[in-house]
Amino acid sequence: MNYGMIAYILGRVLLILAALMLLPLLAALVCGESALPYALTALLTALVGGGLWLVRPKTREIYAREGFTCVGLSWLAMSLLGSLPFVISGDIPRFIDAFFETVSGFTTTGASILNDIESLSRAGLFWRSFTHWIGGMGVLVFLMAVMPMSGERSMHIMRAEVPGPTVGKLVPRARQTARILYLIYTGFTVAETILLMCGGMSFYEALLHAFATAGTGGFSTRNASIAAFDSAYIEGVIGVFLVLFGMNFNLFYLILIGRVREALRSEELHRYFEIILASIALIVLGTFRRYGFAGSLRHGFFITMTTLSTAGFCTQDYMLWPAYLQTMIVLLMFIGGCAGSTGGGLKLSRVMLFIRTAAADVGRVVNPRRVNRVEMDGKRVTAETTGAVYAYVALVMLILLGCTMLVSFDGYDFSTNFTAALSCISNVGPGLGKIGPSGNFSIFSSFSKLVMAVTMLFGRLEIYAMLILFIPSTWKRR
Amino acid sequence: MNYGMIAYILGRVLLILAALMLLPLLAALVCGESALPYALTALLTALVGGGLWLVRPKTREIYAREGFTCVGLSWLAMSLLGSLPFVISGDIPRFIDAFFETVSGFTTTGASILNDIESLSRAGLFWRSFTHWIGGMGVLVFLMAVMPMSGERSMHIMRAEVPGPTVGKLVPRARQTARILYLIYTGFTVAETILLMCGGMSFYEALLHAFATAGTGGFSTRNASIAAFDSAYIEGVIGVFLVLFGMNFNLFYLILIGRVREALRSEELHRYFEIILASIALIVLGTFRRYGFAGSLRHGFFITMTTLSTAGFCTQDYMLWPAYLQTMIVLLMFIGGCAGSTGGGLKLSRVMLFIRTAAADVGRVVNPRRVNRVEMDGKRVTAETTGAVYAYVALVMLILLGCTMLVSFDGYDFSTNFTAALSCISNVGPGLGKIGPSGNFSIFSSFSKLVMAVTMLFGRLEIYAMLILFIPSTWKRR
Repeated sequence: MNYGMIAYILGRVLLILAALMLLPLLAALVCGESALPYALTALLTALVGGGLWLVRPKTREIYAREGFTCVGLSWLAMSLLGSLPFVISGDIPRFIDAFFETVSGFTTTGASILNDIESLSRAGLFWRSFTHWIGGMGVLVFLMAVMPMSGERSMHIMRAEVPGPTVGKLVPRARQTARILYLIYTGFTVAETILLMCGGMSFYEALLHAFATAGTGGFSTRNASIAAFDSAYIEGVIGVFLVLFGMNFNLFYLILIGRVREALRSEELHRYFEIILASIALIVLGTFRRYGFAGSLRHGFFITMTTLSTAGFCTQDYMLWPAYLQTMIVLLMFIGGCAGSTGGGLKLSRVMLFIRTAAADVGRVVNPRRVNRVEMDGKRVTAETTGAVYAYVALVMLILLGCTMLVSFDGYDFSTNFTAALSCISNVGPGLGKIGPSGNFSIFSSFSKLVMAVTMLFGRLEIYAMLILFIPSTWKRR
Repeated sequence: MNYGMIAYILGRVLLILAALMLLPLLAALVCGESALPYALTALLTALVGGGLWLVRPKTREIYAREGFTCVGLSWLAMSLLGSLPFVISGDIPRFIDAFFETVSGFTTTGASILNDIESLSRAGLFWRSFTHWIGGMGVLVFLMAVMPMSGERSMHIMRAEVPGPTVGKLVPRARQTARILYLIYTGFTVAETILLMCGGMSFYEALLHAFATAGTGGFSTRNASIAAFDSAYIEGVIGVFLVLFGMNFNLFYLILIGRVREALRSEELHRYFEIILASIALIVLGTFRRYGFAGSLRHGFFITMTTLSTAGFCTQDYMLWPAYLQTMIVLLMFIGGCAGSTGGGLKLSRVMLFIRTAAADVGRVVNPRRVNRVEMDGKRVTAETTGAVYAYVALVMLILLGCTMLVSFDGYDFSTNFTAALSCISNVGPGLGKIGPSGNFSIFSSFSKLVMAVTMLFGRLEIYAMLILFIPSTWKRR
């Protein structure tokens, strides 16, 4: 293990975090609030980061293990330091609550322990939503965009932070890839901010909701979430951008360079839109008596996108809808966005690979002489990839059941516990029962909040970067 | 596809079923009830079976596909014909209810739609519990014990009906294996009947509860299930036999022939007892204030065994226990008994292989250079087996989610729907919520009952024998 290099990279990450904290600091100054919490935290973060940066690694070699460890440690450190402003400013006085909220922000889960969101300072709300934007594309991808690093090395980091079963480099150099990703990400965020302002939102609220949409996080500035605006236009804009942020960013790059046809051939994209349409149709069927046709279409589109993209904004309390729609929402929570999007969940292409591999394995048991290949976009998928997909789904199930078990010590019903765990591992936000659209996570004990925070990190980092921190051999000196 | 041979074997199965129906017929005569329902059904079954038996297959060759199809069709036919006595006698007048109850019996699920079990005729109760005994070890295994068949051919059938990730032939000839299995099975059933009679049960009730224990089914003759007897002795006897019927029958054979040491080295067996002890300890911790130490130990042992073995007898309403114990019960429902036992669920050795394979795959991602072997009982497990285990767990998850979705159209809460589906695929019986120990499955619509009956068959036949009936190519003429 190259601990020197890990410290070096971790130092860089924290320096970037310190720099990013200047934005909420600025927001505090503009809004006439105390900038002290952000100044103090940025200073502390910069000091720790600078100290680690001074470490001179003997060699710059890093492998998959170092990549995962780097990413895992970075996210833990970011979450610990990122929760300090909430504590210092008094916005969220208890540390465990602030930690939960910050992890929920960075992992783009959007689960909240706040009963009164609107009582937060404006800078606090800014920082809370900004964590979504930072976490959505990933701070290490950002690091790669600005720091020179060999391609091999940065791929190990990229693989640990970018969601999906495989990581496609857009261009040969990882640095270029990272830059293109951030360019698209920023472009969409700016476009959404402008469109939301056209709907009558203030710049401040438009920006914060664009942050939350971009990361598919789901934090709002209002207690009633998006329902507070009661505007079909705003729901439409956010919904359409959720469609975009739930798509594989590689496709936008292909479209940018004119290879539109190739982008549109993606099987995952076709399934994505099929699932969206099917879900809307089911919601319309189940709720048109309640809302009328137009209303059920509006809510069907928004709830479908907010669930499938794993943003978790709320407009309607689907706990009042027919039970089969609630089950469908649970299924959507499992699936999540496309690979290479900012959405959470298992990722659609992984679900597709999972089903295809299972089908091929079924074929093999039933008819041993037939050769069953697993294909995706017309290409054969290697046994290594399908094995990794199986392992990933297996680990998600184990963590899901484990988290459900630990959370159930608080004594709530099974629906609440199970969907809370699912919501955390899939980075959605709300669930069913007591944590449905009209509830929040403040009901849980500190122990459960810690368990759920770790589960969210497992979900966002697709398990391995977190898991490696729990494996003793990672910390063994040789 | 050798349809001739499938018809031939199916004919034999139905002739055996007709013969087995003479037992409830006898019970009706002894109890002075009408024997007509059983005489009529036995006659019809014998006629259909005899007709199919007349089919002379051109060749006796069968492969895996034929094996699975045989088993799937046999179980469907048995369930359809087996439900007729309930309808004819008026014990369960509606066909869909009778079908659900019969499938629940044969698959040893033990989920019931009856609100008043004690109002059934005594012959009806006999047949209901006897289906557990028939289904527990499997009627095709019985067929093999009495019918001469080549080893290769019968292995295809055995693999489709005997639970577990791999089928170990005890002795080179499948016929001998089947006979030994039934010998142990019958021996234990007789022993339990005698021991229950020593506890004050009548011969009739002792036999019926022994049937339900042997198949790990869970049907009782009383509305209050085992709680009606309020006897620590009876719970103890049933609990101990559930421990035995939840174990791999190969181990009993090894003990019988004096290879005790080999039997005791089984890793699955060690985990089995560890899980039992851990579950009892947790229940004692969570309920000793309610029952006192002795009482919580008694209920802890019984509820652990009735859940882990997937029998599903009821003594205590665990819906009144702390929530974490309910979650633990859900976990036990997932695991189920050992491979090669009459228990349901994923089977313990499959869960062990699943976790070990996932751990090895994690190791491969984290450290690509290291070779990670999956081992069981000191032997290396082939990639084919671990792949099949992954595929199996994957299919169970998909069926579980699918069944939950379909059942949720009835409008009950998520806990009820999810645990009803889990209870059916794992062949347990009760679940949480409305189908907890104090509820039953009569609340569901006919559509849901049909879905759940199919799910139970999927669970008992470990998916493939049922799945093959839904694959179009099975029915294509070439």
